[in-house]
Amino acid sequence: MTKLIEYEEASDEVRAVYDDIRATRQTEYINNFWKSIANHPPTLRRTWETLKEVMASPGEIDPLMRELIYIAVSVTNGCDYCIASHTAAARAKGMSDTMLGELLAIAATANMTNRLANGYQIPVDEVFKT
Amino acid sequence: MTKLIEYEEASDEVRAVYDDIRATRQTEYINNFWKSIANHPPTLRRTWETLKEVMASPGEIDPLMRELIYIAVSVTNGCDYCIASHTAAARAKGMSDTMLGELLAIAATANMTNRLANGYQIPVDEVFKT
Amino acid sequence: MTKLIEYEEASDEVRAVYDDIRATRQTEYINNFWKSIANHPPTLRRTWETLKEVMASPGEIDPLMRELIYIAVSVTNGCDYCIASHTAAARAKGMSDTMLGELLAIAATANMTNRLANGYQIPVDEVFKT
Amino acid sequence: MTKLIEYEEASDEVRAVYDDIRATRQTEYINNFWKSIANHPPTLRRTWETLKEVMASPGEIDPLMRELIYIAVSVTNGCDYCIASHTAAARAKGMSDTMLGELLAIAATANMTNRLANGYQIPVDEVFKT
Amino acid sequence: MTKLIEYEEASDEVRAVYDDIRATRQTEYINNFWKSIANHPPTLRRTWETLKEVMASPGEIDPLMRELIYIAVSVTNGCDYCIASHTAAARAKGMSDTMLGELLAIAATANMTNRLANGYQIPVDEVFKT
Amino acid sequence: MTKLIEYEEASDEVRAVYDDIRATRQTEYINNFWKSIANHPPTLRRTWETLKEVMASPGEIDPLMRELIYIAVSVTNGCDYCIASHTAAARAKGMSDTMLGELLAIAATANMTNRLANGYQIPVDEVFKT
Repeated sequence: MTKLIEYEEASDEVRAVYDDIRATRQTEYINNFWKSIANHPPTLRRTWETLKEVMASPGEIDPLMRELIYIAVSVTNGCDYCIASHTAAARAKGMSDTMLGELLAIAATANMTNRLANGYQIPVDEVFKT
Repeated sequence: MTKLIEYEEASDEVRAVYDDIRATRQTEYINNFWKSIANHPPTLRRTWETLKEVMASPGEIDPLMRELIYIAVSVTNGCDYCIASHTAAARAKGMSDTMLGELLAIAATANMTNRLANGYQIPVDEVFKT
Repeated sequence: MTKLIEYEEASDEVRAVYDDIRATRQTEYINNFWKSIANHPPTLRRTWETLKEVMASPGEIDPLMRELIYIAVSVTNGCDYCIASHTAAARAKGMSDTMLGELLAIAATANMTNRLANGYQIPVDEVFKT
Repeated sequence: MTKLIEYEEASDEVRAVYDDIRATRQTEYINNFWKSIANHPPTLRRTWETLKEVMASPGEIDPLMRELIYIAVSVTNGCDYCIASHTAAARAKGMSDTMLGELLAIAATANMTNRLANGYQIPVDEVFKT
Repeated sequence: MTKLIEYEEASDEVRAVYDDIRATRQTEYINNFWKSIANHPPTLRRTWETLKEVMASPGEIDPLMRELIYIAVSVTNGCDYCIASHTAAARAKGMSDTMLGELLAIAATANMTNRLANGYQIPVDEVFKT
Repeated sequence: MTKLIEYEEASDEVRAVYDDIRATRQTEYINNFWKSIANHPPTLRRTWETLKEVMASPGEIDPLMRELIYIAVSVTNGCDYCIASHTAAARAKGMSDTMLGELLAIAATANMTNRLANGYQIPVDEVFKT
C-alpha cells in the first residue's frame, strides 16, 4: 500500500496542487487518490491539470453526465477505487438511484454486445465507415 | 467470419425480431450485428429485447447520453464494431465533433486514472464507503 | 506485421517444434501463430509445450470444452486472431452453430454481470468464502 | 457499497423475481448479487430472465461446463464477486479441484497466447476465414 | 473512420502542436494518431504535452525501456494502432528481435499469472503489504 | 478463497518445485501464489518453469526492467495480488519511488492513448506496417 502524503509534510510543489484542488472543489477534503500519486509530484500535477480540464472546464457534456461516463469506464475496468470515488462524486452532483441503475444497465449491456460482436467476428457495415 | 442471415432466408422467429427492429428504429436497414447473432435465434431475441429496453425505453438519461456511455465502454474494450456502429448512432442523434472529442477525453482520462489507482494500491476513503 | 518463419528457413530448434506440432496435430499445416512466435525460439518452444500440455493431455475437461473455454477468454479479450483460430479448432472438434451461439451467450452474459457486480460494489457473501 | 434489498422490504415486482429465483434454484438463499441489483427493479428482472435462460434452459452445453465458461470470463475480467459466486456454483454442480486447476490453466494460457498474437501483429490465416 | 487533419488545413492552435512534435522528434512526419486527435484541439494539446513529459523528459527509466513498457500495456489492451506505432518507435531506439521476443514473453506471462491469481482468489501475503 | 498448500503437507512433486523456488530465489519464503496454484501440481510446475525462464534467465532486458514490465501489465489488468507481489520484487531489485512514479505514469498514459486510438478509429500508418 502506498504512503499517503499529508498536506503538512508535503513539498511546496505538492501543496500548490492540494491548494488548487481545495479551491476548485470548494472543500478542505483531499481524497486518497491525490495523496497517493503525490509520491511522484510530476504525475500529481499533470493528472490534476488533466482532470480539471476534462471534468471541470466548460463543454457540451454536462458535469453529471461526465461523471456517469467516468463510472461506465471504471466499471468496465473493474477499478474499485474509481468506482467508489466517482459514484460518490456523481451522487453529489445529483445522480439518483434510478439513474445509477440505468447507467449500470447501459454499461453492462455494452459489455455484453461488445463480446457478441467479437465472438461472431462481425464485419463493420459499409454505412458505418463514412 | 460469421454468416449474415438475410431477411429473405430467415425463420419466422428471426423475421419477427427484424420486423420489430425496423418498426422501432423506423428504418429498413438491419445492420450486420443483428444479421450475425441471428445465427442463434434465442440470443437475437433476448439481445434485441435488452437493447430496446435499455437504450430506447423512457428513463432519466437521455438517448444521446446513453449512446455516449455505450461508446465509452466500447472504446475501453476496444470493440471495433461497436465503436463504429454506436458512433454512427450517436451522430444520428446529434453528437457533434466537439462532443465526441470531450467524450473520448473523459474515457481516456478515466482509463489513465484507473491504472494509477491500481498501481498505487490506493485504499478507498472512508467517506466513499457510506 | 511480423515476419513469418517458414519451415525451410527455420533453425533446427524451430524445426523440431514444427515437427512436433505436425505430429501431434496430424496435419502438415503450421498456422501463422507459430510462424510468428518462432521469431523468438524460446517463446515458441515454451508456448508449444504449454499449449500441448494444457489443451491436448488427458484430463477431466474434454477437448471440445477446452476449446470453448479458450474462445470465451479470447472473446472477452477481443483477440481477433485467437477467436478465428480457436473457432476453427472447435468446429473441427464438433462444435455446432447452436453450441457456438450458446457459448457466446454465456460469455456475453458473464461480461454483463461482471460489470453489474463491479458497479454496485457488491460484497461477497459469507457462504462463498469457505 | 450498495444497499442490499431484503425480501421483507422489497416491492411486489422485486419479490416476484426473488420467488422465481428460489423456485428455480430450490433454495431459500438469495445471494447479494440479486439483492444489490434489486435497487433497479428492471435490471433485476431482465438480468434474472437472461441468466435463467442462458444458464438453466436446455441446450447443448451441460450445466457444469456453462459454469466453467462463466468462471473463465470472470477470471479474465478480474471480477472478484463473480469468481467467488460461480466457483461456489460450479463446485455445487460437481467441479473437482482438478477440474478447477485445468480450467484455470486453460484460461491463463489463453490470456497468454492472446497477448502474443497481439504483440506479434499476426495476420489471420486464410484457412480460418471461411 | 476519423478525418485526418493535415498541417495545411489546420488551425493555428493545431499547427503549434504539430510544429512542436516535429521539433521534438526531429522529423517532418506527423503520424495518424496526432492527425486524428487534432479533431479536438484541447485533447491534441494536452495529450502531446503529457506524452512529451512522460516519454521524452529526463528520468530514471531510459527511453527504450519506456517504449517497452508502452508496448506491454498496448499488447495487454489489444490496441492495434499503439502496438504498431510503439513497436516502430522501439525499433528506432534500438530494440532487437530478441528484445521484442523477451518483452512479449514477459507481458504474456504476466497476463497468464494475473488470471491464476484471480482464479484462485489468492490472499495478498502480509509481507507484501508494508 | 483457495487452500494454501504448506511444504509439510505437500506431495513430493510439489515439494520439488518449492525446493527449486527456494534455491533460485535464495530465500525460505514461499509466497501465497505458489501455495495456491500448488492445488493443481501440473500448473505449479509449468508456471514456475515459465516464470524462471522468462524472469530469471540471461537476456537483453535486465531483471529490474523485467519487473517494471510485469507491473505495467498487472496494473493494466487490475490484478491486486500481482501488483503487490511484483512491486515488492521490484523494490528488492532497486526500484526507487521515483522509478515507480515514472513507470505508473507511462502505464497510465499508454492506457489513455490506447483508448483515444480506439475511439477515433485511427488507421495504422503505412510506415508502421513494414
